[in-house]
Amino acid sequence: MPRPVDVPALVAAARDGAPRAVARLISLVEDADPALRDVMAALTGHTGRAHVIGVTGAPGVGKSTSTNMLIRVLREQGKRVGVLAVDPSSPFSGGALLGDRIRMQEHALDQGVYIRSMASRGHLGGLSWTTPQALRVLDVAGFDVVLVETVGVGQSEVEVAALADTTIVLLAPGMGDGIQAAKAGILEIGDVFVVNKADRDGADATVRDLRHMISLGDRTATGLWRPPVVKTVASAGEGAGDVLAAIAEHEAWLVSSGQLRARRIARAADEIESIAMATLRARIGDLRHSHNVETLAAAVVDGATDPYAAADKVVGALT
Amino acid sequence: MPRPVDVPALVAAARDGAPRAVARLISLVEDADPALRDVMAALTGHTGRAHVIGVTGAPGVGKSTSTNMLIRVLREQGKRVGVLAVDPSSPFSGGALLGDRIRMQEHALDQGVYIRSMASRGHLGGLSWTTPQALRVLDVAGFDVVLVETVGVGQSEVEVAALADTTIVLLAPGMGDGIQAAKAGILEIGDVFVVNKADRDGADATVRDLRHMISLGDRTATGLWRPPVVKTVASAGEGAGDVLAAIAEHEAWLVSSGQLRARRIARAADEIESIAMATLRARIGDLRHSHNVETLAAAVVDGATDPYAAADKVVGALT
Repeated sequence: MPRPVDVPALVAAARDGAPRAVARLISLVEDADPALRDVMAALTGHTGRAHVIGVTGAPGVGKSTSTNMLIRVLREQGKRVGVLAVDPSSPFSGGALLGDRIRMQEHALDQGVYIRSMASRGHLGGLSWTTPQALRVLDVAGFDVVLVETVGVGQSEVEVAALADTTIVLLAPGMGDGIQAAKAGILEIGDVFVVNKADRDGADATVRDLRHMISLGDRTATGLWRPPVVKTVASAGEGAGDVLAAIAEHEAWLVSSGQLRARRIARAADEIESIAMATLRARIGDLRHSHNVETLAAAVVDGATDPYAAADKVVGALT
Repeated sequence: MPRPVDVPALVAAARDGAPRAVARLISLVEDADPALRDVMAALTGHTGRAHVIGVTGAPGVGKSTSTNMLIRVLREQGKRVGVLAVDPSSPFSGGALLGDRIRMQEHALDQGVYIRSMASRGHLGGLSWTTPQALRVLDVAGFDVVLVETVGVGQSEVEVAALADTTIVLLAPGMGDGIQAAKAGILEIGDVFVVNKADRDGADATVRDLRHMISLGDRTATGLWRPPVVKTVASAGEGAGDVLAAIAEHEAWLVSSGQLRARRIARAADEIESIAMATLRARIGDLRHSHNVETLAAAVVDGATDPYAAADKVVGALT
């Protein structure tokens, strides 16, 4: 039997930054717990302070090491840092957990860092639903910066980018030159490009390639921000300051251009739409359970009606 | 500009089996044309006669050759045969088209055969929507048997199986032994298993493996039908009679057990649900266009409401 959820107490504890309360709330998000409705209502008015930074890139570019480097330098600035490692592709989140274990060792005793991996277990709405809810929990818990790290590749990167205020795209020499990046669709989503492992051969060529591709790209969708390209050697901590400076510059631009609010409104609209669709889907599920849809389906099979007319009746019954 | 659709004339021509009318109607299905609503209403009462046979299997097992063999023997029995080659994975349907071209040569002058490849172009509802609509068109056009061939692998096979009265799963020696089949989830969906390329080494072992796996499987979901395993060499036309006999036996069982009606009702219920969800999604899209969702999203960002309460308002506005 699930434990009963004392929403006001949990939310109060999370607002004080209590790690166990934060963990419990994010578990409710993962499980799509019915109590979430009350949780989200209780968080209202306490959100919007955290800067959400997406960190994405193909496997092998050094995502965990780079996130770790960012945590370290943000902590040196006195900022509290939440990390959400999202693995949309796997219900087990193995890669994320491995990265976590390494980071846990370094930050285990630091109360200013909270690291959590989260699987989106393919539940209704997927990333567009779970991630913003988890972000809201970390925001309310007072983290100044929340890093969202994706383990997946492809479509999930684009989805996660839509959830972040600033999206950092990581590449490594030889793995992700400009053309590969263009093919993967990451030129459009990156606000800051980081060429990691910059001590390897080909790093400068990758930087040139990227800058060239960015100069050719259509940036109107992102409001004419020209994304900088920064070099790092995350394993040695080199370039961390440059990445932070680029992030800060982007943050300032987001505010002055009005894009911060615009992005957050678009994000909230996606989330509202996901929840509304899930509500409607659940109501149709109830109609199937009570055999209303099956009765209509039998009428379609018997040639007494057609699927569109039947669907109209289902929509009518929901409303 | 799209041509205007004369629905009554098109449907009348399709009911006479006119290939161009059939082709036009299936193009409307592919394009999710608004006229489909009238088309499906006009088809009402004229469907339910065609036996729908799904043909699926991994690339390389000889799907096109096997479908071709089935067309030939069904034609020898005087049956009119429609073929729908569905490629859920690709918008270009290249593999399907290649297979078609080969078959077209053999059946080009035969008025009793209609072959069509269809891409599901990732549009709303996907396979669960387009395929049953196209099947209904072929059914009304008087085809006694409709073969639905999937090019994709994995989830799409399972989806297509849900759309067929009888699902044939093809395997080849060495490629698809019992354990591989179990992993791919195809043991659950097959009504008839065909080991093609049975002149190759290992065919008997594959048959034994499959029979063993089937005997271990839980068949309650398919109403206790024990699927037969048949050997063919489709390229030489060997085993065609055995496949047809197995299909006929399954068809008789479907009728006597009541499963034919049950499967078709479940299929229609899925279709109705897909159309209803698409209708609701379109209405939410309209709400976004008219800025209602954006206004709610801004209220969420400003901390004046939460996403669940906002979603309730969206659901309320739809109804």
